[in-house]
Amino acid sequence: MLKTYWNEKLQMVETELARLIPAETSLCHTLSDAMNYSLLAGGKRLRPVLLMAAADAVGATGTDFLRTACALEMIHTYSLIHDDLPAMDNDDYRRGKLTNHKVFGDGMAVLAGDALLTMAFEIMAMDVAATPAKALQIVQEMSRAAGPAGMVGGQAIDLLSENKTIDMELLQQMHMAKTGALFLAAIRSGAILGDASEIQLAALTRYAECFGLVFQITDDILDVIGTEAAIGKPVGSDERNKKSTYVTLTSLERAKELAESTVEEALEALRPFGAEADFLRSIVQYLITRDK
Amino acid sequence: MLKTYWNEKLQMVETELARLIPAETSLCHTLSDAMNYSLLAGGKRLRPVLLMAAADAVGATGTDFLRTACALEMIHTYSLIHDDLPAMDNDDYRRGKLTNHKVFGDGMAVLAGDALLTMAFEIMAMDVAATPAKALQIVQEMSRAAGPAGMVGGQAIDLLSENKTIDMELLQQMHMAKTGALFLAAIRSGAILGDASEIQLAALTRYAECFGLVFQITDDILDVIGTEAAIGKPVGSDERNKKSTYVTLTSLERAKELAESTVEEALEALRPFGAEADFLRSIVQYLITRDK
Repeated sequence: MLKTYWNEKLQMVETELARLIPAETSLCHTLSDAMNYSLLAGGKRLRPVLLMAAADAVGATGTDFLRTACALEMIHTYSLIHDDLPAMDNDDYRRGKLTNHKVFGDGMAVLAGDALLTMAFEIMAMDVAATPAKALQIVQEMSRAAGPAGMVGGQAIDLLSENKTIDMELLQQMHMAKTGALFLAAIRSGAILGDASEIQLAALTRYAECFGLVFQITDDILDVIGTEAAIGKPVGSDERNKKSTYVTLTSLERAKELAESTVEEALEALRPFGAEADFLRSIVQYLITRDK
Repeated sequence: MLKTYWNEKLQMVETELARLIPAETSLCHTLSDAMNYSLLAGGKRLRPVLLMAAADAVGATGTDFLRTACALEMIHTYSLIHDDLPAMDNDDYRRGKLTNHKVFGDGMAVLAGDALLTMAFEIMAMDVAATPAKALQIVQEMSRAAGPAGMVGGQAIDLLSENKTIDMELLQQMHMAKTGALFLAAIRSGAILGDASEIQLAALTRYAECFGLVFQITDDILDVIGTEAAIGKPVGSDERNKKSTYVTLTSLERAKELAESTVEEALEALRPFGAEADFLRSIVQYLITRDK
């Protein structure tokens, strides 16, 4: 179930993403190339798949909202490009490929990120699969999640915490904003587009919060026990960079326990749902077994 | 008329901008400080004033749309912050103040720009002065204007043209995207919010295209004949940087003529309008007499 569903949605996302930025007709070909370089670099496509899965879970057809799902992936991609810049994490590789600025230069990488973010809002606002009121609500959800009270705010805390030990409270606050907010927006947006009831939306919001937490904890665990070949970037970087993580602030064992209990909480949140939510059930369980 | 109207609107914009990003309640205070540092650095506030003036021109009350007008200024501000980065123009001063990255560091400046852009869409999408359908239309206008087919696309062409002579066609294309698109979005958004008829919207679109062109030509002229004290940044930078401009590609005299004839065209576009469009008439004429 997990693999089939995921692969099917992932293929649709890849096909749609490849259509979104046609280089030939664009104002600046190099900019389009830079955008496509990172946008089409593969990856798990977790966020768009979660958006569609949340719509499925409330009885709608998730793939109807493929374009908005892809726009969300553009926001995620922009954040990776800017995060990798020398002024930020200064990473040379991402998913086993040179990072955007290593190929196109720092200036063009800044612009490619800016362009992906801006175009994402255009695509959401133009999505004819949603009523104007719904499309507007999605722009609201996504901009709040990606802005200073969400993802960018979390990145700013992260930037200021470099080479500093931070406590568990700030760590959780940072991750809830930096990574959690976009997962939350993905799942809530899918639910909203799928005409979720208030009760369904609240349950999926709770699920999404747990999902984001499990994702981050298992990400920290992978940095310790993962392999470079599987992850596509060097492991052990958190320790080298003296970064506070769920593992460094507790222990590997304690981090695993926290991940497992949070998975249980996520499943509990899905209890009111039928088989339509099976993918959401599988994918949060998959997180604690993943090797990348 | 020009000064009174402008000052009144400018004061409202300043007051509203100062309210938008309260540092105390924000997730990351430093990020809020960095956003406010550039957002509240003064300036002519041309774009928000034009948005409100366009709404006035079609018989609505422009100040009703103050929040969306301020959101547009946030987009303009983000573009300045990213433009000033070492990876782009590498400018140390802007409006007589240190640039954002000189004060907050390159990484925080990238994030402050990202946050301003993202929050701008949130504010537009949340603007209760517009119906959901209208707010959505504004998000569409603004995202298209600011994205790869507009402002960011123009900046990318600009970045690739550094130390290169470009021809008049590419110069015009670049400026229409880099500067013109946001003026166009300002004026069209004001018209749309003010319930313009199709004919009024077309006329104001024509006016906006002329306005953007006059703005750019006079900007190029100021770089030659302006004073550092008035402009707040060194003059003669275009010549030093071997930048192609309307002046370098033609002559100072020819550039002035082109600016004047384009002002005539802008006024012609406004012919169907009554006294409600007087500010738009004055401000395009002001452009050719300005000293900053």
